[in-house]
Amino acid sequence: MPKQPDPARRSERSRQAILDATRELVSEVGYAKVSIEAIAARAGVGKQTIYRWWRSKGAVVFDSFLALSDAGEGDLALPDTGDIEADLKAVMRATVAEFADPAFSAPIRALNMEIIGDPGLAAQYLEKLAGPLDEAKKARLRSAQQAGQIAPDADLDLALELLYAPLYQRWLLRSGPLTPEYADALVDLTLKALRPSARP
Amino acid sequence: MPKQPDPARRSERSRQAILDATRELVSEVGYAKVSIEAIAARAGVGKQTIYRWWRSKGAVVFDSFLALSDAGEGDLALPDTGDIEADLKAVMRATVAEFADPAFSAPIRALNMEIIGDPGLAAQYLEKLAGPLDEAKKARLRSAQQAGQIAPDADLDLALELLYAPLYQRWLLRSGPLTPEYADALVDLTLKALRPSARP
Repeated sequence: MPKQPDPARRSERSRQAILDATRELVSEVGYAKVSIEAIAARAGVGKQTIYRWWRSKGAVVFDSFLALSDAGEGDLALPDTGDIEADLKAVMRATVAEFADPAFSAPIRALNMEIIGDPGLAAQYLEKLAGPLDEAKKARLRSAQQAGQIAPDADLDLALELLYAPLYQRWLLRSGPLTPEYADALVDLTLKALRPSARP
Repeated sequence: MPKQPDPARRSERSRQAILDATRELVSEVGYAKVSIEAIAARAGVGKQTIYRWWRSKGAVVFDSFLALSDAGEGDLALPDTGDIEADLKAVMRATVAEFADPAFSAPIRALNMEIIGDPGLAAQYLEKLAGPLDEAKKARLRSAQQAGQIAPDADLDLALELLYAPLYQRWLLRSGPLTPEYADALVDLTLKALRPSARP
């Protein structure tokens, strides 16, 4: 048991209130018009409380979106049962379900529209949000490489694009259904592309 | 030789002026604020001239973007030399070069931001612009299926997503370089995923 439970609890409540306020404001007014002042006012904290944990608006915005998914719990690692197909299907089915859910996807869509129009914000997004998630995914692909389930010379950045970009595009353009079967089909095709060459 | 060359030439000049004006206006003020009146004024034609060729604002906007690429010449067919790998690499290298060129990609980016935020516009985009292009690409994949270069049961819609969505995502998020090598790598991986099963 910690010696001072109350300050720790208060601290966690403030952090949550800041993340919630940030996400709400981005959805309501767009990234460009969100200010640290507005976040502080809505979260009921002082500006200094925000700056104690985050260096910039970009940092708190991307943390607030990271907190939306399970990955926000701090552990970004993918499941590793030893079966890359089963593990990727579980992860992709969960991702497809998230994007099919308007409560999750509406603020992410608002953020994506800003990122697409703003190269500086795109760079921050890649560094602070997509980068850490991609590293966690590549760690799982690397373990599959070591197990001989993926070709040793596979380009893992390209592998992630193959796996996730079709889902991203289908969601952005609303060009097809987001279903568990779609998640499975993406995993099957990607693993076929990444499979080690058969020995002669 | 046509009997009346002058009206035909004048007609083609008007059509080009309308398409150019449309694209300029979408880039300058965004899709939502473009009107048929504004297009007519900038192109130096009457509104009725536009309505003679296009039923709606969406129709002329998507035609104006279709006209940007080679596909706009009216022939959407992909090359068919009998070698699907060579043909797809030629097409993907050309596509990557277009997206790497700001003169081509800036108006397309503006249009994409509108499409992503507007489900109705997305549906029009899929029907009028992406749909015809996708059908032409699928026709080439189908001929590769008949030649035994692609699995007979391959899902060709999914195949197109695998081939193009990584490029689209990389361009939208500016997450990596758009190079001929990248085009080739996407074709190699996609064809590996689509390859017919080896006979036992």
